[in-house]
Amino acid sequence: MTAPRHVDAVVLRRRPSGLPRPDDLALSEVEVPTLGDDEVRVSVLDLSLDPYLRSTLAGRHLDDAPVAVGDVVPGRSVGRVVASRAADIPEGALVLAETGWRAEAVVAAKQTTLVRVPAGVPASAALGALGMPGLTAYAAIVRHLTPRPGETVVVGAATGGVGSVAGALARDRGARTVAIVGDDDKAADAIDRLGYAAAVVRGRDGWEDALAAACADGIDGYLHMGDMPTLHAVVRRLAPHARVSLCGLMDQYNDGPPTTLPVAAIIMARATVHGMVVYDHGDLVGAQLAEVAALLADGSLTLHEERHEGLASAPAAFARLMAGRNRGQVVVTGGR
Amino acid sequence: MTAPRHVDAVVLRRRPSGLPRPDDLALSEVEVPTLGDDEVRVSVLDLSLDPYLRSTLAGRHLDDAPVAVGDVVPGRSVGRVVASRAADIPEGALVLAETGWRAEAVVAAKQTTLVRVPAGVPASAALGALGMPGLTAYAAIVRHLTPRPGETVVVGAATGGVGSVAGALARDRGARTVAIVGDDDKAADAIDRLGYAAAVVRGRDGWEDALAAACADGIDGYLHMGDMPTLHAVVRRLAPHARVSLCGLMDQYNDGPPTTLPVAAIIMARATVHGMVVYDHGDLVGAQLAEVAALLADGSLTLHEERHEGLASAPAAFARLMAGRNRGQVVVTGGR
Repeated sequence: MTAPRHVDAVVLRRRPSGLPRPDDLALSEVEVPTLGDDEVRVSVLDLSLDPYLRSTLAGRHLDDAPVAVGDVVPGRSVGRVVASRAADIPEGALVLAETGWRAEAVVAAKQTTLVRVPAGVPASAALGALGMPGLTAYAAIVRHLTPRPGETVVVGAATGGVGSVAGALARDRGARTVAIVGDDDKAADAIDRLGYAAAVVRGRDGWEDALAAACADGIDGYLHMGDMPTLHAVVRRLAPHARVSLCGLMDQYNDGPPTTLPVAAIIMARATVHGMVVYDHGDLVGAQLAEVAALLADGSLTLHEERHEGLASAPAAFARLMAGRNRGQVVVTGGR
Repeated sequence: MTAPRHVDAVVLRRRPSGLPRPDDLALSEVEVPTLGDDEVRVSVLDLSLDPYLRSTLAGRHLDDAPVAVGDVVPGRSVGRVVASRAADIPEGALVLAETGWRAEAVVAAKQTTLVRVPAGVPASAALGALGMPGLTAYAAIVRHLTPRPGETVVVGAATGGVGSVAGALARDRGARTVAIVGDDDKAADAIDRLGYAAAVVRGRDGWEDALAAACADGIDGYLHMGDMPTLHAVVRRLAPHARVSLCGLMDQYNDGPPTTLPVAAIIMARATVHGMVVYDHGDLVGAQLAEVAALLADGSLTLHEERHEGLASAPAAFARLMAGRNRGQVVVTGGR
């Protein structure tokens, strides 16, 4: 019998209070379990850091199992199968799996997905535009916002994993897209790299006037991922029969006050407001992959990623993400 | 040349602050204008008192013209045409018209609607179940709440002009209907006269537990007309994929704090929230009249009216309505 192998991992050191700090998490070593029937061992290539993990760490993301102090932080990765006891997944396959933040993981074969990306597109797209953030954007666009040519669609967190895809999908449907972002660098990315018609930096003096100027005919569709002041500013400028998709609440993730919506503005605009939970929209995956891959292939959508090297960089990268300082989908490269 | 005729009317004496008081309004006399081409003179039979007038008096109901102190209070009536210079409306016709609160009015023929009610149904139904309140309920049910058999539909202000019709329409579609009401008398009306499966008196100690008990499987549809605590209590109990129709904000009418909606609950329920403005749904009038008349004819819906005699009773009746103490659609009978 061989001695158990250990690999690098990131564990919860202390439950975050408010904005996560890098030392809420710690680099550690964990044992790699023996491979059982119908399981595969995955070597992590690209680990995705996503805002919803903030709620999971606090023990309140939908039905996710709570994470105890000392547990490995959960998370999704693209990885290479290095050992397989599953009939349909060969060694060498590239898969998407819930590995947690560790260099190597043993997972049930049925909980992995083979990664298929078009030629020239990096496999990490399966974590973003071709993965769950992309599905969130796709479902928000086709089921909630249904943009029509000439309409104005505003995207919150516009350069992030969800927002960048939503903006491209809305533009492809003929809508004029307006980005809401957190700083000037992101505003530049929104216009230069992601094709938004206009970008507004939220929270500054006069920013609501800038939003109004960028949306002179009112706002027909709004994908909300952000804070309450942004939500209120947008809702005050809704056009008649506007649609709002509530995709993420950054305030809530970081223990802010509960986000509320002003009801009178919803009535005045005869608006429709949709709560989004991406797990309801799995039936759209095929359509998402086809449409988003086509946008990537013809250059209408640029993958917008921020890459960090090695698991040791993950705690600081996560704090940066939760403070809104990331530029694009946050990916940690290489398990070790 | 004959001397101008004068008739009784109710005018705005003072803009209401908070809950309207009877002496915010005053009985007065106004001149009846000479009849012009394509106009009719209408003798008011039944005047409708509606909550939206509270906003109109404050100068903030949608695009309604503001009402100045001294002006006749606006409002809709069923009346008899006593003189006509319009080709298509004979003397003696029964019409629905924007007469304001006065005994007799001269109105443009094209702004009147001939009243057609089924045999045995009083003409005042054109102000309620077969009128705009009924259209609000009908549009909320068919366009927003779309109740399915076995679902639970909660109706706020459940015994009022809108709520009583919405409850009957939802029940007719196989839903289990739960009334939210303001007092025990209304709870009795809801069950005994209007056919709700359960009724909950809002605002009392433990009332949210009573609501939860009455909606054990969660709330699939909610027609909101009421105050913010009620909205929040309902939204916390939404079933997955619930629908909410925002039809009226009693708080706002009476200068209360702005009503807000908790966003996290909307996301958790993957709910859809619709702002209702009845003027958008005029295309449904034909379907409303056919379906609601059938419910009245077969006894599934009982006209639920509170009648007051004479214009002099209107100011107190309006204060009663805005304090939520009315029982059913409020009608003031007889112009004089």
